[in-house]
Amino acid sequence: MPKSVYVLNGPNLNMLGQREPEIYGSESLDDIANRTKKHLKTLGFDCEFRQTNSEAELVNWIQEAGRDGAGLIINAAAYSHTSVAVRDALSAVAVPIIEVHLSNIFTREPFRHHSHVSAVAKGVICGLGAHGYLLAADALKELIS
Amino acid sequence: MPKSVYVLNGPNLNMLGQREPEIYGSESLDDIANRTKKHLKTLGFDCEFRQTNSEAELVNWIQEAGRDGAGLIINAAAYSHTSVAVRDALSAVAVPIIEVHLSNIFTREPFRHHSHVSAVAKGVICGLGAHGYLLAADALKELIS
Amino acid sequence: MPKSVYVLNGPNLNMLGQREPEIYGSESLDDIANRTKKHLKTLGFDCEFRQTNSEAELVNWIQEAGRDGAGLIINAAAYSHTSVAVRDALSAVAVPIIEVHLSNIFTREPFRHHSHVSAVAKGVICGLGAHGYLLAADALKELIS
Amino acid sequence: MPKSVYVLNGPNLNMLGQREPEIYGSESLDDIANRTKKHLKTLGFDCEFRQTNSEAELVNWIQEAGRDGAGLIINAAAYSHTSVAVRDALSAVAVPIIEVHLSNIFTREPFRHHSHVSAVAKGVICGLGAHGYLLAADALKELIS
Amino acid sequence: MPKSVYVLNGPNLNMLGQREPEIYGSESLDDIANRTKKHLKTLGFDCEFRQTNSEAELVNWIQEAGRDGAGLIINAAAYSHTSVAVRDALSAVAVPIIEVHLSNIFTREPFRHHSHVSAVAKGVICGLGAHGYLLAADALKELIS
Amino acid sequence: MPKSVYVLNGPNLNMLGQREPEIYGSESLDDIANRTKKHLKTLGFDCEFRQTNSEAELVNWIQEAGRDGAGLIINAAAYSHTSVAVRDALSAVAVPIIEVHLSNIFTREPFRHHSHVSAVAKGVICGLGAHGYLLAADALKELIS
Amino acid sequence: MPKSVYVLNGPNLNMLGQREPEIYGSESLDDIANRTKKHLKTLGFDCEFRQTNSEAELVNWIQEAGRDGAGLIINAAAYSHTSVAVRDALSAVAVPIIEVHLSNIFTREPFRHHSHVSAVAKGVICGLGAHGYLLAADALKELIS
Amino acid sequence: MPKSVYVLNGPNLNMLGQREPEIYGSESLDDIANRTKKHLKTLGFDCEFRQTNSEAELVNWIQEAGRDGAGLIINAAAYSHTSVAVRDALSAVAVPIIEVHLSNIFTREPFRHHSHVSAVAKGVICGLGAHGYLLAADALKELIS
Amino acid sequence: MPKSVYVLNGPNLNMLGQREPEIYGSESLDDIANRTKKHLKTLGFDCEFRQTNSEAELVNWIQEAGRDGAGLIINAAAYSHTSVAVRDALSAVAVPIIEVHLSNIFTREPFRHHSHVSAVAKGVICGLGAHGYLLAADALKELIS
Amino acid sequence: MPKSVYVLNGPNLNMLGQREPEIYGSESLDDIANRTKKHLKTLGFDCEFRQTNSEAELVNWIQEAGRDGAGLIINAAAYSHTSVAVRDALSAVAVPIIEVHLSNIFTREPFRHHSHVSAVAKGVICGLGAHGYLLAADALKELIS
Amino acid sequence: MPKSVYVLNGPNLNMLGQREPEIYGSESLDDIANRTKKHLKTLGFDCEFRQTNSEAELVNWIQEAGRDGAGLIINAAAYSHTSVAVRDALSAVAVPIIEVHLSNIFTREPFRHHSHVSAVAKGVICGLGAHGYLLAADALKELIS
Amino acid sequence: MPKSVYVLNGPNLNMLGQREPEIYGSESLDDIANRTKKHLKTLGFDCEFRQTNSEAELVNWIQEAGRDGAGLIINAAAYSHTSVAVRDALSAVAVPIIEVHLSNIFTREPFRHHSHVSAVAKGVICGLGAHGYLLAADALKELIS
Repeated sequence: MPKSVYVLNGPNLNMLGQREPEIYGSESLDDIANRTKKHLKTLGFDCEFRQTNSEAELVNWIQEAGRDGAGLIINAAAYSHTSVAVRDALSAVAVPIIEVHLSNIFTREPFRHHSHVSAVAKGVICGLGAHGYLLAADALKELIS
Repeated sequence: MPKSVYVLNGPNLNMLGQREPEIYGSESLDDIANRTKKHLKTLGFDCEFRQTNSEAELVNWIQEAGRDGAGLIINAAAYSHTSVAVRDALSAVAVPIIEVHLSNIFTREPFRHHSHVSAVAKGVICGLGAHGYLLAADALKELIS
Repeated sequence: MPKSVYVLNGPNLNMLGQREPEIYGSESLDDIANRTKKHLKTLGFDCEFRQTNSEAELVNWIQEAGRDGAGLIINAAAYSHTSVAVRDALSAVAVPIIEVHLSNIFTREPFRHHSHVSAVAKGVICGLGAHGYLLAADALKELIS
Repeated sequence: MPKSVYVLNGPNLNMLGQREPEIYGSESLDDIANRTKKHLKTLGFDCEFRQTNSEAELVNWIQEAGRDGAGLIINAAAYSHTSVAVRDALSAVAVPIIEVHLSNIFTREPFRHHSHVSAVAKGVICGLGAHGYLLAADALKELIS
Repeated sequence: MPKSVYVLNGPNLNMLGQREPEIYGSESLDDIANRTKKHLKTLGFDCEFRQTNSEAELVNWIQEAGRDGAGLIINAAAYSHTSVAVRDALSAVAVPIIEVHLSNIFTREPFRHHSHVSAVAKGVICGLGAHGYLLAADALKELIS
Repeated sequence: MPKSVYVLNGPNLNMLGQREPEIYGSESLDDIANRTKKHLKTLGFDCEFRQTNSEAELVNWIQEAGRDGAGLIINAAAYSHTSVAVRDALSAVAVPIIEVHLSNIFTREPFRHHSHVSAVAKGVICGLGAHGYLLAADALKELIS
Repeated sequence: MPKSVYVLNGPNLNMLGQREPEIYGSESLDDIANRTKKHLKTLGFDCEFRQTNSEAELVNWIQEAGRDGAGLIINAAAYSHTSVAVRDALSAVAVPIIEVHLSNIFTREPFRHHSHVSAVAKGVICGLGAHGYLLAADALKELIS
Repeated sequence: MPKSVYVLNGPNLNMLGQREPEIYGSESLDDIANRTKKHLKTLGFDCEFRQTNSEAELVNWIQEAGRDGAGLIINAAAYSHTSVAVRDALSAVAVPIIEVHLSNIFTREPFRHHSHVSAVAKGVICGLGAHGYLLAADALKELIS
Repeated sequence: MPKSVYVLNGPNLNMLGQREPEIYGSESLDDIANRTKKHLKTLGFDCEFRQTNSEAELVNWIQEAGRDGAGLIINAAAYSHTSVAVRDALSAVAVPIIEVHLSNIFTREPFRHHSHVSAVAKGVICGLGAHGYLLAADALKELIS
Repeated sequence: MPKSVYVLNGPNLNMLGQREPEIYGSESLDDIANRTKKHLKTLGFDCEFRQTNSEAELVNWIQEAGRDGAGLIINAAAYSHTSVAVRDALSAVAVPIIEVHLSNIFTREPFRHHSHVSAVAKGVICGLGAHGYLLAADALKELIS
Repeated sequence: MPKSVYVLNGPNLNMLGQREPEIYGSESLDDIANRTKKHLKTLGFDCEFRQTNSEAELVNWIQEAGRDGAGLIINAAAYSHTSVAVRDALSAVAVPIIEVHLSNIFTREPFRHHSHVSAVAKGVICGLGAHGYLLAADALKELIS
Repeated sequence: MPKSVYVLNGPNLNMLGQREPEIYGSESLDDIANRTKKHLKTLGFDCEFRQTNSEAELVNWIQEAGRDGAGLIINAAAYSHTSVAVRDALSAVAVPIIEVHLSNIFTREPFRHHSHVSAVAKGVICGLGAHGYLLAADALKELIS
């Protein structure tokens, strides 16, 4: 039985900590990766934590998660709002999917209020910063058990 | 220092377990209240868990939570989509607010995709059923600490 | 077997006969209640005929009708156009629901053309004045038989 | 004094009983015609019950009903949603008009939610199947008396 | 060289003089036909003056006018607002086309503000009652000369 | 002859002075009530000054004002933007109605730019803080005289 | 009795003959003025033929026409699409108003399809070039007689 | 077993070869009929190839095809964009339906981008001229086999 | 310290008393000017009361009021709905601005519901006729003190 | 002379046969590739059959097809709905382009009804499954001959 | 050969340096005029630098530039967003036109995102402050050479 | 201190000179690169001139420019209209950004009128062909000095 949780991050999240900290917080993505991996380990999961600026690579990884993963946490960032390809990849995945956003997208520009990911995810967690990744891990644990 | 977390529930949530279980699950609101109270206790909080069908009562309780609470978890149900009064009450509250929905509102009718609550909450958790309340409690714990 | 038909009336219908008679006719709500009760009796039903200005009370009564009623006739008046809470309450009711409006809402202001109730009712009768209540009773009789 | 009630039916209603019975029921249009004629007779009316797939013929018959009829029951089917010609013909008719739909058009595709007929009819009855024709006859009786 | 001007009239114009005279005037269509024919004669044209409630017949006549006519005056009435078929027929006609409306459609319901005919006509005359037909004849004379 | 002016205030206005003072000012509702009552007294009126978070109670009070009042000043707050029930209650009131808003709603979020109350009030005063109530009283004096 | 017909022309019409002749024709405004004056003379009217690029001057002249004119022909050009001031001035004029456009505005950019003038004019003539002014004069003659 | 394929053509297609050849090509409808019949014969089908300008006749023929045909190819032309009656007739047909358009409707006016037929057809072929009919025949062959 | 209040009036207000008195009342603008000047005098202000049909002149006067005035009352009439130039001029003015409308613009045509002025004014008073100018003067007095 | 037909497939089509077979069928993309190559061979063409999840690679291949291909068949999948880059690449290609979709996109979610590809393709074939590729090959053969 | 470049400035630009310097900078329009004239001189052009608050005067000057100028730089300010008259005047001008805005209009209110001028200008330069005028002069030099 | 200006070009710009020269001109991207580099050199800058069809690579390069560049000139081509990822990357860049388009995007299809880049750039230059790059370089020089 697969025991890896995939945690996939979209464009510009490699800039975390440097880019607009008043919106995204001061933690780097590496910090978040470490906290998430540690937390998943305590829940009994391995963790594939990745980031890409490429829509195609995100699609590839989602397909991989569908084959090899036990669950999927995704923060598609900008591609949440523009990518039907990501949506289509997700809708072919049978394991549970949790969408995460660091910021509360509903308090930002109107074009960020709609996410293609939400319609094919099991649940959505947003606005809770890096802690949202840990909550998503807890949610997956609950769903998979 | 106030140590109560208010958990406020909107219209028709008293029907949980009986109403459309394929959407809302088979747990009753009492079951959720018990799990939430227990979990909040382990986090060091008291819990004011309430439900009402009345928009005015919801507004009153939000004002009370603003005065007496340490944090606020709100599932405004139908009033999420229609009540500016609830929004206005929430925007006057200084303690952290987490919005919860049992179902994933983004996979349902278009009129459920917009929530007046989201724009004034700290974070949003939806689609994760009763477990969402526990995650919201964890989020509050993190925010208040 | 429950034999009560609930006939629930929304805000400002207590003003019937006084308020804009060119739109709503000159009969009072008491007149309509009497005619409806008498007619339901001839059809073999008891009648719970009520009016409220409160959205919450309307929700409460709909829940009660779902438990104790054989059928439901509802003229939600202004709440038809604004209340998702009423809609949600109705969609949890298993007995047949008939929506009634005294006036023809499609010849009035555009914001009255949409009713949240219509989407969850079995049928709609509008524009036929107080007589619409009697026709709705006949319709329920047919559906329940 | 004219004593005929015209009952005019629009396109594809000749397929009733065969076409999508889960939406329109299993009765044929002939069955409905017979029930309606019999019911109108008990109310003291003759009945002109007709069906056409032609917008022009429907316009002609409405004009005829305006000259020779005591009242008009119309189920314009698809033309309800697309025909200004039907609307214009109806708005020149002085006798009372009742619009009928077998299905509840408000629970179907959005393009069926608007009817050009509603704006020029006295009342609307929908979602009550073939029984709706009988209720419409009762409504006409009440209006004409 | 063809010397006939086609004057084609759409649905419900056969009711002129009886239907809503406060909008359409008290002249009958026969009165208008006579005045128009007489006026066209003085301009050196024959006149084919016709009315139909049928979209198909209107299309047929437009095709005929394209073959046999010197010019075309069209009051498509309700079909102005709904018929792409009429528009397509007109756009295949090489002779000049003048659109006429008895009433000023821009002072009426919004759905009458758009005409499919206008986009393929040479010119538009509206709001001038039966006199509009005579002005259209003058316009054709000018265009054909 | 009735000599009471009703001054009705909607949801969250009980929080005035505490809630978002940069928008609503630092005066409490009691302060405003006192200034308004005193001013109305100088104009020869009694004053019924009330506040509620309940849409139903607001509807009840408007109906009462229609029966017992000489005029009506209403700041429906959030219900201005969402309540057809309030609108319907107001449109049945024969005495003059003045709508008041403390803040200039046109400089705020788009959903506050539309008020159901405006369409059935005699006049609108907004953006002038608590002083707006006194101006509304003056306006009523002028209208009633 | 006033016997002047005002013929008022809006911005850029002074460029006629030079500006985009494929749309507006090769005649200058002076040519049109001469033809229109001559034609109005034969109909028994004096003619005030004017052009301005100024919205204010157009408003002034419309007010003057309302005082001193027997009728008004207006080609408001660009102001047709943008000026509520012109519309308001026209709606205060009691004599008949005919709107004229040289080109068929319905075959051009969408922002030219709506004219504020049409809603307050008696009739509209468009697409018939300079000849449209003469037809408008004929229409006025008919209306005034 | 029925072996006829119905090939139904809507309004103005009788003008093919004469009307706007730069859009629709220079072949006449007779040419297309002949090529289509010959091709269907090689596939083992009879062919009912018809054209009408009448929406009602199109509805009648679709109903007939539903009873007597093995498959249906439809180019509803203008009625594609305006006819719910055609859509309703098609949705009652059990045999496979292929929609064909000679021109690529997506490169034309926006009102041609939506077809009521597409939503109830099995497949759509457009922009390939008369050859599209032959491809549709091939598609039917594949679907029926 | 400047002690002049500018009272600036937009297009067609010079027609007051003659133009549509059922909307605008029977007082002339001179009457209003006199009442307003007298009232401002009692409040300790001089008054620059002006009217223009010119958008440019209105802009000029607003700029002048920004330099030389103590406050600004503006009824921009039609330009309220169309003029960004007026809006821009007002947003550069540091003294308080009150927008006034004689009629209740929210009960009129939809294009009058939006005012560019409102977004840059301190407050809005509408629907109270000429008395609105006096109330605006009172409001300015309050704001300036 | 180039004799290769490029058959380019967009994101997630590599999942065919596994992903949502009720929508996309049970054939794998390899199966389709084989059938398409064989069919193109019989038509005298070589075949470049490719799939990518990358928008950039799709753009690159389209540019290559423009240089080296005789024709282009494209199923851009999700990028049909979101990619202006793909559209721009296609509009620079001189050889004929056929758009293919396996499913009927007009019976699916509204965001799939619009394709950027359609506006720059010669023709569109959709809803016919893998067979659509063969029909597209036939269409290219016809266009190139 | 004309050697003047017209530099035309719309409403409120005379307030530069005083009005909202955080948006428009602290330079006065005279400063910009001087820099622009000097720069144009080095490019071999005379300069007609003008400002007006009047739409009509702007139209007049554009017409003059069309007759006497070698090129046109226009910052129509508020009229960019509202004036079809300005657009029409510009579209009749044969010399090259460059649109300039001091601020980046795309980062401001939505109603400033659309400019009627852009659609008829050769190029657009915005957001670069007074320097934008010099760049526009360079652009004209390049276009005219 | 960094002295490189990044000049980043989006999809299909590698086709310049071959693709639609009537829109984009006949210069190749190499020609533009050479002219831009030479010009930047005279201004004292190095130049990183790059083109990619990949959204991800464009994001990568923007991040690099943010670290290593003195300024950024971007012609994101198709991604201007569709990429929130590009927008997000740009908004994290502290050096000045100038958006360039070869063609005037406001005279083209409506979907090209909106650019995600404009909202986060300092300024926009469009419609001036390859010369626009040189002007953008001048603008950067001015901003950086």
